[in-house]
Amino acid sequence: MIIHDPSMPSLSGERFTVVYSLKGDEKEAFSMAHDICFEQTVEFPEELVPEGTIKDYITGKVEEFYRKDENSFHAHISFAVETTAFELTQLLNVIFGNVSLKPGRKVEYIKFSDGLLKIFKGPLFGVSGIRILLGIEGRPILATALKPMGLSSSELASLAYKFAIGGIDIIKDDHGLSDQPFSRFEERVALCSEAVIKANRETGGRCIYVANITAGFTELHKRARFAKDAGAGALMVAPGITGFSAVSYLAEDKSLGLPIISHPAFLGSYVQEGSGISHRALFGQLTRLSGADAVIYPNFGGRFSFSKDECKSIAEGASEPMGNIKPIFLAPGGGMKLEKIPDYMDVYGKDVIYLIGGGLFTHGPDIVENCKFFRGLIQNS
Amino acid sequence: MIIHDPSMPSLSGERFTVVYSLKGDEKEAFSMAHDICFEQTVEFPEELVPEGTIKDYITGKVEEFYRKDENSFHAHISFAVETTAFELTQLLNVIFGNVSLKPGRKVEYIKFSDGLLKIFKGPLFGVSGIRILLGIEGRPILATALKPMGLSSSELASLAYKFAIGGIDIIKDDHGLSDQPFSRFEERVALCSEAVIKANRETGGRCIYVANITAGFTELHKRARFAKDAGAGALMVAPGITGFSAVSYLAEDKSLGLPIISHPAFLGSYVQEGSGISHRALFGQLTRLSGADAVIYPNFGGRFSFSKDECKSIAEGASEPMGNIKPIFLAPGGGMKLEKIPDYMDVYGKDVIYLIGGGLFTHGPDIVENCKFFRGLIQNS
Repeated sequence: MIIHDPSMPSLSGERFTVVYSLKGDEKEAFSMAHDICFEQTVEFPEELVPEGTIKDYITGKVEEFYRKDENSFHAHISFAVETTAFELTQLLNVIFGNVSLKPGRKVEYIKFSDGLLKIFKGPLFGVSGIRILLGIEGRPILATALKPMGLSSSELASLAYKFAIGGIDIIKDDHGLSDQPFSRFEERVALCSEAVIKANRETGGRCIYVANITAGFTELHKRARFAKDAGAGALMVAPGITGFSAVSYLAEDKSLGLPIISHPAFLGSYVQEGSGISHRALFGQLTRLSGADAVIYPNFGGRFSFSKDECKSIAEGASEPMGNIKPIFLAPGGGMKLEKIPDYMDVYGKDVIYLIGGGLFTHGPDIVENCKFFRGLIQNS
Repeated sequence: MIIHDPSMPSLSGERFTVVYSLKGDEKEAFSMAHDICFEQTVEFPEELVPEGTIKDYITGKVEEFYRKDENSFHAHISFAVETTAFELTQLLNVIFGNVSLKPGRKVEYIKFSDGLLKIFKGPLFGVSGIRILLGIEGRPILATALKPMGLSSSELASLAYKFAIGGIDIIKDDHGLSDQPFSRFEERVALCSEAVIKANRETGGRCIYVANITAGFTELHKRARFAKDAGAGALMVAPGITGFSAVSYLAEDKSLGLPIISHPAFLGSYVQEGSGISHRALFGQLTRLSGADAVIYPNFGGRFSFSKDECKSIAEGASEPMGNIKPIFLAPGGGMKLEKIPDYMDVYGKDVIYLIGGGLFTHGPDIVENCKFFRGLIQNS
């Protein structure tokens, strides 16, 4: 009933594969796998899908299917690269668009094809670029956030100065600082950039200030430019709020040329037990593919809920081979305990940005001295 | 240890309130509520929060706390409107940014304050505007999607023509159609717009074609403009992929002046049992606040998992009083059964866009006749 000319523009034959974990008994899980093939592509009842290229090529294919544990199966489903239109947004849609609306299905891992990886540029800096920028070899990097919300821009800048004098490598806006009346974006970014540049002049260091530019479309672009011009050393954005395409937009703008740090706000709902997207795929593979140079996420053993294994899997996604797409820095935070650094080292090695907060204020009465203490710990780790 | 001048720029005193549902016994749930007050604002250990305005005003406040059922409590937590910077992105962050990373906490409902509602414009059209645009009073609206992916642009346009001739009111791109080699965006949008305009000329109808412009930052803007110029009658975007700020960006661009229809792809992970964001707040309140004129979501009894009560709650969020922000159209889809229209009417009333798919192809051998049949059903419903 649908008129379709089976001749199509030349198709590459290239497919990429998504590994889904599916809850249920074998019959249920296989039926879910079969459903994903249609739901994520033609979104059409199977019996109505036109024969030929659409049925044989456009529709997803179950390539492997096996039991994972007592109550779940893994299905490797391949999709023609053309279904993604070679765009990050449509790639996300093929991987998880409508599947997100059906519980019991989870994206575990994405096996990108070579051709697809060539389309996406990934991060401009990555681990090696950030190390070059900061002039730091052979040790983890020490970062902290400017807060609490409610301080004025000059109070935040004064904190930034102390942190930089004390030897912190990366000083970022807290992710809740945007453009509030008590600290306007432009004022804050100008003062904090200046404070860090001044401290660097005094210490000879290469500390950077990271401006949070999470905002709506037009503002995000304007804030990125302003931050660049003011002397900020990197940009932070929360892709759960802006969409991952904001990250790639920033990473691809060569006139900015700044590292992009992703923040996990509003993304937590994806990393569920049995549904959603795995930690590895979300905070590792997709964050990296979209072009972030470093990924902030809640560390294990802190005030959030990620387990040690989940954090390990993020480390895998951030560093495993992925064509020409550079490995990115891990930036665990959210209640880091510095006495646990040896434990963290086991999981992350040295390519890690330790994001510490409260401890810088509570260790002793002097913030600069506290920073020096933690910097010493890191230096010798 | 933090130097803070307690004098602040003039603050309004206005607060808005988020109702969270919290899992656990009373002590656990109250501790979660208390934690949210800090986590979503100052993100700072309580004992370090500077006295004065920051502690008294910037920090969230538990306004009400009561048992909801055996294993959960409701906390009404108020936030100073200034914490949102009067921006959609930072508002989303205050409501659910870091909370998303902590399971057992769910956004049930948002009580916006008057001042906050004045900042956000919401939809340009809403229910009344879409009715005026389509010239339809007193009956539900009939919509369908162009698919399957893999058809050429001229094949899709030919389908669009038949649908329009048959009396469908709204014909939208399937949400997986973006800019694939088998149907390039500009070619498809030009041909489908033209096909629907031609059909309208013949029928005297006012059917509209809706272009899916879900894409990255730069492309989204370009595609919106192209669709407008080509004669498309509305734009569709998936805020789960583009971010909700893409919706407000489009709604606020007066030079476009087209209705915006939101698609639920990639949003499903938020509507979880016990965590995430409620159907009412996500598909109702937040979609509406961001400026969508109609919200697509999976209907109850179809191939997705939303219950009748959840769908009812979306209807509430889409139409309850919300300052000057217009009520928006519900657009349930995903396996609609036309014989169930009386049941749907009970839940939705007449202000609903029925999004039907497969039935238009399977009811009988002739697509135009099938459309007429369903249009007849709707007309008399």
